Amino acid sequence: MADKKVALVMGSDSDMSVMQSCIDQLKEFGIAPVVRIISAHRTPEISADFAKNASANGIKTIIAAAGMAAHLAGAMAAGTTLPIIGVPLAAPGGPAGIDALLSTVQMPPGVPVASMAIGKAGAKNAAIFAVQILALSDETLAKKLSEFKETQRKKVIEKDNAIQK
Amino acid sequence: MADKKVALVMGSDSDMSVMQSCIDQLKEFGIAPVVRIISAHRTPEISADFAKNASANGIKTIIAAAGMAAHLAGAMAAGTTLPIIGVPLAAPGGPAGIDALLSTVQMPPGVPVASMAIGKAGAKNAAIFAVQILALSDETLAKKLSEFKETQRKKVIEKDNAIQK
Amino acid sequence: MADKKVALVMGSDSDMSVMQSCIDQLKEFGIAPVVRIISAHRTPEISADFAKNASANGIKTIIAAAGMAAHLAGAMAAGTTLPIIGVPLAAPGGPAGIDALLSTVQMPPGVPVASMAIGKAGAKNAAIFAVQILALSDETLAKKLSEFKETQRKKVIEKDNAIQK
Amino acid sequence: MADKKVALVMGSDSDMSVMQSCIDQLKEFGIAPVVRIISAHRTPEISADFAKNASANGIKTIIAAAGMAAHLAGAMAAGTTLPIIGVPLAAPGGPAGIDALLSTVQMPPGVPVASMAIGKAGAKNAAIFAVQILALSDETLAKKLSEFKETQRKKVIEKDNAIQK
Amino acid sequence: MADKKVALVMGSDSDMSVMQSCIDQLKEFGIAPVVRIISAHRTPEISADFAKNASANGIKTIIAAAGMAAHLAGAMAAGTTLPIIGVPLAAPGGPAGIDALLSTVQMPPGVPVASMAIGKAGAKNAAIFAVQILALSDETLAKKLSEFKETQRKKVIEKDNAIQK
Amino acid sequence: MADKKVALVMGSDSDMSVMQSCIDQLKEFGIAPVVRIISAHRTPEISADFAKNASANGIKTIIAAAGMAAHLAGAMAAGTTLPIIGVPLAAPGGPAGIDALLSTVQMPPGVPVASMAIGKAGAKNAAIFAVQILALSDETLAKKLSEFKETQRKKVIEKDNAIQK
Amino acid sequence: MADKKVALVMGSDSDMSVMQSCIDQLKEFGIAPVVRIISAHRTPEISADFAKNASANGIKTIIAAAGMAAHLAGAMAAGTTLPIIGVPLAAPGGPAGIDALLSTVQMPPGVPVASMAIGKAGAKNAAIFAVQILALSDETLAKKLSEFKETQRKKVIEKDNAIQK
Amino acid sequence: MADKKVALVMGSDSDMSVMQSCIDQLKEFGIAPVVRIISAHRTPEISADFAKNASANGIKTIIAAAGMAAHLAGAMAAGTTLPIIGVPLAAPGGPAGIDALLSTVQMPPGVPVASMAIGKAGAKNAAIFAVQILALSDETLAKKLSEFKETQRKKVIEKDNAIQK
Repeated sequence: MADKKVALVMGSDSDMSVMQSCIDQLKEFGIAPVVRIISAHRTPEISADFAKNASANGIKTIIAAAGMAAHLAGAMAAGTTLPIIGVPLAAPGGPAGIDALLSTVQMPPGVPVASMAIGKAGAKNAAIFAVQILALSDETLAKKLSEFKETQRKKVIEKDNAIQK
Repeated sequence: MADKKVALVMGSDSDMSVMQSCIDQLKEFGIAPVVRIISAHRTPEISADFAKNASANGIKTIIAAAGMAAHLAGAMAAGTTLPIIGVPLAAPGGPAGIDALLSTVQMPPGVPVASMAIGKAGAKNAAIFAVQILALSDETLAKKLSEFKETQRKKVIEKDNAIQK
Repeated sequence: MADKKVALVMGSDSDMSVMQSCIDQLKEFGIAPVVRIISAHRTPEISADFAKNASANGIKTIIAAAGMAAHLAGAMAAGTTLPIIGVPLAAPGGPAGIDALLSTVQMPPGVPVASMAIGKAGAKNAAIFAVQILALSDETLAKKLSEFKETQRKKVIEKDNAIQK
Repeated sequence: MADKKVALVMGSDSDMSVMQSCIDQLKEFGIAPVVRIISAHRTPEISADFAKNASANGIKTIIAAAGMAAHLAGAMAAGTTLPIIGVPLAAPGGPAGIDALLSTVQMPPGVPVASMAIGKAGAKNAAIFAVQILALSDETLAKKLSEFKETQRKKVIEKDNAIQK
Repeated sequence: MADKKVALVMGSDSDMSVMQSCIDQLKEFGIAPVVRIISAHRTPEISADFAKNASANGIKTIIAAAGMAAHLAGAMAAGTTLPIIGVPLAAPGGPAGIDALLSTVQMPPGVPVASMAIGKAGAKNAAIFAVQILALSDETLAKKLSEFKETQRKKVIEKDNAIQK
Repeated sequence: MADKKVALVMGSDSDMSVMQSCIDQLKEFGIAPVVRIISAHRTPEISADFAKNASANGIKTIIAAAGMAAHLAGAMAAGTTLPIIGVPLAAPGGPAGIDALLSTVQMPPGVPVASMAIGKAGAKNAAIFAVQILALSDETLAKKLSEFKETQRKKVIEKDNAIQK
Repeated sequence: MADKKVALVMGSDSDMSVMQSCIDQLKEFGIAPVVRIISAHRTPEISADFAKNASANGIKTIIAAAGMAAHLAGAMAAGTTLPIIGVPLAAPGGPAGIDALLSTVQMPPGVPVASMAIGKAGAKNAAIFAVQILALSDETLAKKLSEFKETQRKKVIEKDNAIQK
Repeated sequence: MADKKVALVMGSDSDMSVMQSCIDQLKEFGIAPVVRIISAHRTPEISADFAKNASANGIKTIIAAAGMAAHLAGAMAAGTTLPIIGVPLAAPGGPAGIDALLSTVQMPPGVPVASMAIGKAGAKNAAIFAVQILALSDETLAKKLSEFKETQRKKVIEKDNAIQK
C-alpha cells in the first residue's frame, strides 16, 4: 500500500552495513522502499534519470546516503522537487563523517537537502522522517508514528524504572 | 488556502534578520506562515505546548531556527510527529555556526530533525523544503515548485549568457 | 544525610558505562544520588516535570549526561534555577564528542549550563563539582573535599617518587 | 549582604569589554563581586595565593575568564575546592575561541572547571550560574532567580506577541 | 592558439569577484579560457552536457569553482575523463570555506578532483596548474612557466633586498 | 611505453601500505611509475634535485604522498613546473589527516599542488588523475580511461541490479 | 656530563607510554634527563617550585607533556625564563589531541611555550629540540646532532634504494 | 653584541605587519636580528642555502613565519640542526590560521620545529623564546629576561590595582 513511495539510494553497496537499519525502520512502518545503488559520480546519468523520473514513478521522497564528498543527495535535489533526505556517512580513515555532513547539509539557496545525523542515527532517522512526510496525508501512518513515539517513550520509562531498582 | 500550514519558530526576534528571507520565500509560494518567537530554554512550556498542539492546529511542518546550542528544532521534534526542519544560525563571536549545526543535525535515533545549511542559505531552503513537503498533496504548490525550479534554471542561463559576452 | 541532594539524569542506560564513575565518585563522598534515565527528546514531559519539581524534591544540583545533539542539560536548565552540570558524551561513529560538547556548553545568555570535559573525565568531575557546590553549606563535605584534594596530591607525589627510582 | 562572595578574575584588563556584562548581571542580583586582574602566566604566585586564600576570605565561587590557552580557571581549580566557573574568550585573529573553550573545559579528572559558552553569552551566564550556587543557601537570591527566570519568560512572550501583529 | 583549451565554470556570477584572478592569470599565459556560469544544482543538465562534450569541444582541462556543498567540480569529474581542477570558495557566514574544501577534495576512489587552496590563492593556482598540464605538450607554454617561476623568484629576492636596507 | 612518465615519491616506506594501491592503479593503466622514498625534511637535497631534474628525466607528473605537516608535495612544486599531485595521509594518533590535508592543499599563490582526498581514496585517485593528464596527449591512455570509466559504471549497475533482487 | 640539564615533567605516569621515546632519544644523545611526575592541577605548588628552582638546579630546558587542557608547559613557562618545550598528548575518547595542542601552543604574549607535534612524534622531537638548544654551547652535542641528521638521511636513502629494487 | 645571532625569515613582505612586533621585541632585548624574505616555495634554493649556512654565519636560532601551508619553518629545520621557531600566520579568507598551525607544528619525528601561537602573540613570543635560548649562555640576556618577566608581573599588578579602585 505504501509500497515504493520511498526510495533509498546509496553510492555503494558497502553503505548497506549502515543503511540496513534505515530499510528495517521503514519496513517496521509497513513501507517497502525502492532500494538502489546509484552513484552521483560513477553513474551520473542514471542518477539524473532517477531523480527526474522519481515523481512520475510514484516516489514521494528520496533518502540519499553517501560518504566523503557526499554529492548524491544534492544530485537528487538538482533533478526533482521531491523532498530529499540526506544521510552523511563516515568513511574509514577520514574526518569522522564531518566531510560528508558538510557536503550534504551546506546546500546553496534554492536547492534544499534535509540532512540527518552522521551514520547509524541518521540512517534510522531518515526512515522516520520519510514516514513523517508521508503521514501528513496517510492517517494509518500518522497513527503508527504516534504509536512509535509512545513506544519510544515507554522504553525510556522502563529503563528508568529498571535503573532505580 | 495554504495559510498557516507552515510554522516558523525562532528563539529570538534578533533571528528575524536572517529568517525574514524564509518568510519571504514562503510568501512567494503563497504560504502565510505562523511566525512565533518561542525559546526552548526561556519559554519551555510554550515550546512544548506549541509542538504538542501543532498538528491539531492544522500545521503540517515546523521550521525552527536557533543559534549556539540550538535546541529549538529538537524540542519541536520531541513534542510532535510532524516533520521538523532546523535552521542553524551563526551567533556573533562564536565558531561560525558549527555549534548550531551540530546541535541541530546530530539528533539521536528516533527523533529526527531535518537540518538545512547554516544561516541565510538554510533560511531560504527551509521554506522551499517545507513547500516540497506540502506539494506532495497539493497540485498547485507542486506546479509552483516546478516553475520555481525552472526560473532558477533560467536565471543561471541568463547569467551564463551575460558572462560570455 | 546528603542523600538525594544530587540527581544524575542520562538520556539512555547505555550512558551508564561512562557515568558509573560519576556515581562511584559521589558515593565516595557519601552522597547517594538520584539516578534517572530521562530523555529530553523521547520523554520530554518527564524531563520537564523532573526539572520543575527538582528543587521541591530536595535536589540541590542536577548532573545531566548526553551525547550527540546533547539537549538534556539545557532542558534541565530551562525548567529550574538549580545549578545544572552537563557532561558531553562521545557517541561511536561521531566527531569525538565535539557535537555533544558544543550542544552542552554553548547555552544562550540567561540559561547557564556548566559543562565538564567530554566523557570519563567529565563524568568524574561532574561528581566532584556537585560536591563542591554542596560543600559551601556542608562542613563535613568541605572537609572531605580537602582530604580528596590532599589524597590526589599524595598520589602524584608517590608516582613521582616511584618514577625517580 | 551578598558582598564579595563571588570573585571575578581576568587575565587582562582588555577582557573587561566582554566581562563587564558579567559584573552588571551580578549587580542586578545585588552581588558586588571582587574583581581582579590576575594572570596564571604573568602573576602565577598571586594567582596561587588568590585561589588558596579565597575560601578563607569569604569567597564562595570564582569566575575566571581568559582567552587563547586559557589556564586561569584551571589554576584557580588547582588551588581551592571552591566551585570554579570558566569563561572562554575569543582572541582576535585566533580560532574563534575554540582554543580557549578546549583549554577551559577539558580539565583532567579530579580538578573540575565548569565551562560556560564562549564570550558574551558565557560572561552573562557565569554570573547567573554563580547566583544559582549561592541561592542554594540564600532564600532571597533564590527568589530573585525565580523572578529573573519569569522576567526572561515574559520578555520572550512580549516579543512573540509583538511579532504576531 | 591556446584558445579555449581551458574552461572555467562557476556556480554563480558572484564567484567572479574571486575567480577574476584565475582568468587574469590564464590570460597572462596567453590563454583565453571558456568562462561559464553553470550550476550543478540549478542547471544539472547543462552541467552534465558541458562535461560530456568538453573533450570533443577541444577543452583539455576544466577549472570548477564553487562554495558551500561544492559539487560542481565533482559533477564535471563524473561526466568526463579530462583532468578537473576544483577551487573551493568561502561563502559569507559559513565555516571559512572548510565546507567547500571537504566537498571538493574528498572525492571517492575512481573519480578524482584536483583541489586547490580555498579562495584567491586557489583561484590563481588553478590557472597555473591548468597551464602546467597544457605545457606538457606545448613548448611555448613550458617556457612561459619557467619564466613565470623565475619572475616569482626574482620578486621575492627584490623584496628580500629591499627589507635588508 | 608510458614507462617512468609518472613518479611517486613518499616520505617514508611505511606509507607504502596506503600508496601500493596508487602503484597498482597506475600499472592497471600500463604505467610503470618511478617510485622513490624521499623526505622533504630528512633528505631535502635529494628532494630538491629530484624535483629540479624530473622534467629532464622524462617525468611528466609527480605524485607526492606524506602525512602530518606534509611538505613533500610543496617541495616538489617549488622545484619544478611539472604538475604535482599531493596525497595527504593520516598518521596514527593525529587529527585524522586534516593536518596533512591542510599542509598539502593550502599552497600559497604561484605554486600549486593538486590535492587528492585523504588516504586510500586519494592514493587511487592520484594515479587516475596522473593518467588523465598523460591521456591528453596519448590516445591509447585516453581510450583506457574511457574503458575504466565505463567499467566503473557497469560495476555500480551490477551492484544495483544485485541489490534489487 | 650533560646530566640533568634537561628535565621532563609529565602530568601522569600513564604518559610514560608515549614519553619513554623522549627519554630514549635523550639518552641516545648521552643526556640523562631529570624525569618527574608533576601535575599543574594536582600538585600546583610542586609545579611552581620546580619551575622556580629549575635554573638554580642546573636545568637548561624543560620538556612538559600533558593531555586534555594541557596546562603543564604553561605553568612551567610562568615560573621560569628557561625555554619550555610542550608536548601535547591525545587522551582516549577526546578530540585526537587537538585540545592539548591548542592548550599548549596558544600561549598569550610574553610567556612562550614551544609546542611540538601531538603524541609520539612530538615526544621524540622534544628530545631533539632540547639537544639542539644545548648544542649551541656544547660542541660534542653539536657533532652528535650532525651525525644524527646524517644517519636519518642515510636511513631514508637506504629505504629508497631498497624500494627501487 | 648579540647582533645577528637571531634570524627572522618570512615568506612574504606582507607578513611584516604581524612580524614587526617580533623584531621590536628582539630589539628591546638588544638583539638586532637578520631579517630576510625567503620563500620555501618561490626561492627554495635560497631557503636551503640560508638554512645550511646559518650556523657558519653565526646564527644561533631561526624564527620562521609563514601562513597557509606554512613550510618555511620545516624547510629551515630540514637544512640545519639549529633550533627553529615557527610562527603560524592566519591568511585572510582562510581557516583562521589553523592551516598554518598544523603545517608548522605537526613535524614528523626527527626534524623538530618549535611552534608558537598563531599570529601576533606568536610573533612576540618567538622573539622571547629566541632570547630564552640565547640567555642560556649569556648572563646579560638572562638578567634582561628576569627583568622583562618582573616588568610583565608589575604591569598586571598595576592593572589589578587600577581596576579595584
